[in-house]
Amino acid sequence: MSSLVPLDPSLPPFLQPYLPRDVSDSSFPFILLTWAQSLDSRISLEPGVQTIISSKQTKTMTHYIRTQFSGILIGIGTFLADDPGLNCRYGNANSIRPIIVDPHFRSREKLKTSRLVRQVNEKTGLVPIILIDENLKDSVCSLGDFLKGTVQLEFLPTDNSGRFNWTRLFQRVRSIGIGSVMVEGGGSIINNLLLSKRENGEPIIDAIVVTIGPRFLGAKGTEVSPLHSVELKDRKWWAGDCGDAVFAGRVA
Amino acid sequence: MSSLVPLDPSLPPFLQPYLPRDVSDSSFPFILLTWAQSLDSRISLEPGVQTIISSKQTKTMTHYIRTQFSGILIGIGTFLADDPGLNCRYGNANSIRPIIVDPHFRSREKLKTSRLVRQVNEKTGLVPIILIDENLKDSVCSLGDFLKGTVQLEFLPTDNSGRFNWTRLFQRVRSIGIGSVMVEGGGSIINNLLLSKRENGEPIIDAIVVTIGPRFLGAKGTEVSPLHSVELKDRKWWAGDCGDAVFAGRVA
Ligand SMILES: NC(=O)c1ccc[n+]([C@@H]2O[C@H](COP(=O)([O-])OP(=O)(O)OC[C@H]3O[C@@H](n4cnc5c(N)ncnc54)[C@H](OP(=O)(O)O)[C@@H]3O)[C@@H](O)[C@H]2O)c1
Ligand SMILES: NC(=O)c1ccc[n+]([C@@H]2O[C@H](COP(=O)([O-])OP(=O)(O)OC[C@H]3O[C@@H](n4cnc5c(N)ncnc54)[C@H](OP(=O)(O)O)[C@@H]3O)[C@@H](O)[C@H]2O)c1
Repeated sequence: MSSLVPLDPSLPPFLQPYLPRDVSDSSFPFILLTWAQSLDSRISLEPGVQTIISSKQTKTMTHYIRTQFSGILIGIGTFLADDPGLNCRYGNANSIRPIIVDPHFRSREKLKTSRLVRQVNEKTGLVPIILIDENLKDSVCSLGDFLKGTVQLEFLPTDNSGRFNWTRLFQRVRSIGIGSVMVEGGGSIINNLLLSKRENGEPIIDAIVVTIGPRFLGAKGTEVSPLHSVELKDRKWWAGDCGDAVFAGRVA
Repeated sequence: MSSLVPLDPSLPPFLQPYLPRDVSDSSFPFILLTWAQSLDSRISLEPGVQTIISSKQTKTMTHYIRTQFSGILIGIGTFLADDPGLNCRYGNANSIRPIIVDPHFRSREKLKTSRLVRQVNEKTGLVPIILIDENLKDSVCSLGDFLKGTVQLEFLPTDNSGRFNWTRLFQRVRSIGIGSVMVEGGGSIINNLLLSKRENGEPIIDAIVVTIGPRFLGAKGTEVSPLHSVELKDRKWWAGDCGDAVFAGRVA
């Protein structure tokens, strides 16, 4: 676990327009999509291999951003590959709720020895929410008091291909009191969300923050590239002397 | 053909360390690899489809960079897709030599109506060099005075898989008096050159300049991603208010 460094003072004002606004009268949380990629838009060297891409400065930025959100969402692929902490190590804030998109409940075994559950037991992290296909509800419940008190299982409907509907998923997240969600990956979740729309045709995501670590990870890596093109607006760049650049914008 | 705009005065000093140095006592030209890509490292929407990625400001930068080079090299895929001018529209300089990597001489038909040949006839561009597999020499020469004076055919050996050796290719280019080459693509050429080494183990390319236009072109696009990872050094970013960012560096 790399340690953090003092945050570059130019980052908070740069990020500010892309951080949560008040959603108290909305059935939807504020959603930021954020990740770190190489120049060749890879987020890992190989699928399932955790890869350090960002510098300490942009890593610190990620933990700063986490202080502004009440939920942090990842896909099961990332959980299994990285065993992530998903906590907030910036300042003393430790109030972000991990959410795992895991329709087939593939996290079951690994959760027991995971950092997420260890952090709950050590009171250094909040209880993670696992989003599971509601067709599995009966079989999962028969597991008894599996991980009782250390994970919260939420059951959601899926479509014919076993996928959650993102609008419904985020409405559920909002209904359990989470008003802002930072989505951190992995590739499949990002590529999906870049293209997803609300029922009114608006993009699902409110903002995008991408860190670019200037190297090439190569064609075998997990990549960010949606199925078709996506135009962006409110586009801004930050570059410090850490080597990385940060892009912020919104889906047009 | 989009027109150029006044060059941002911060760009020449930013680019200066990545521009040609004196190679008069070397058998190798100075080589810059440069392209414009989307956030998802695509250089076109689909293979063979010319796609505008950069803003007018970074487009102007490309023409400024061209003033500093004596040769500009592309692959046959790019020639066939884009019918590019490869001339230099910045200031009044018009002294850059187009070079096409075309082992199978696939450019033959299209050359006749190409911008490159038209520019030669109109005296607005230099005679392009076509690099062809030497096994085709006899059949090509029997074409007679094909395009006489408007193209220069150079024949080079290829390996078992019909590829030129990059070291030999650039030595040939140097031997015909070209001391600096800007390689502008496309995907296949870039991915190849990022990994290529000289006989002494040093990278073939001296510098890299990448413009990033902040949009996603999507997974069907021609992509830049070498077969394996590549670390970079001397890494710097430029971001103006044109929306694009520019990365400059060298292979480590
Ligand atoms: N650099 C970074 O910022 C960063 C951040 C995060 C992750 N990563 C890397 O990314 C890699 C993992 O990415 P990944 O693409 O393999 O996995 P992922 O996106 O984390 O998870 C993909 C899985 O999530 C489930 N899922 C996705 N969309 C869904 C939907 N709409 N409804 C229901 N389930 C859905 C599916 O599970 P089922 O297969 O069970 O249906 C899918 O296989 C790892 O190598 C990790 O290190 C990098
Ligand atoms: N955004 C940008 O900056 C930018 C710049 C340039 C191009 N582009 C886009 O890129 C696309 C074209 O890219 P591409 O990958 O299809 O084509 P490409 O890289 O321009 O050309 C590839 C061809 O060059 C030849 N070649 C490559 N390496 C060789 C070697 N070592 N020895 C001998 N021949 C070699 C091969 O020809 P054979 O198949 O005949 O063997 C190969 O098929 C177009 O859509 C274009 O618009 C974008």
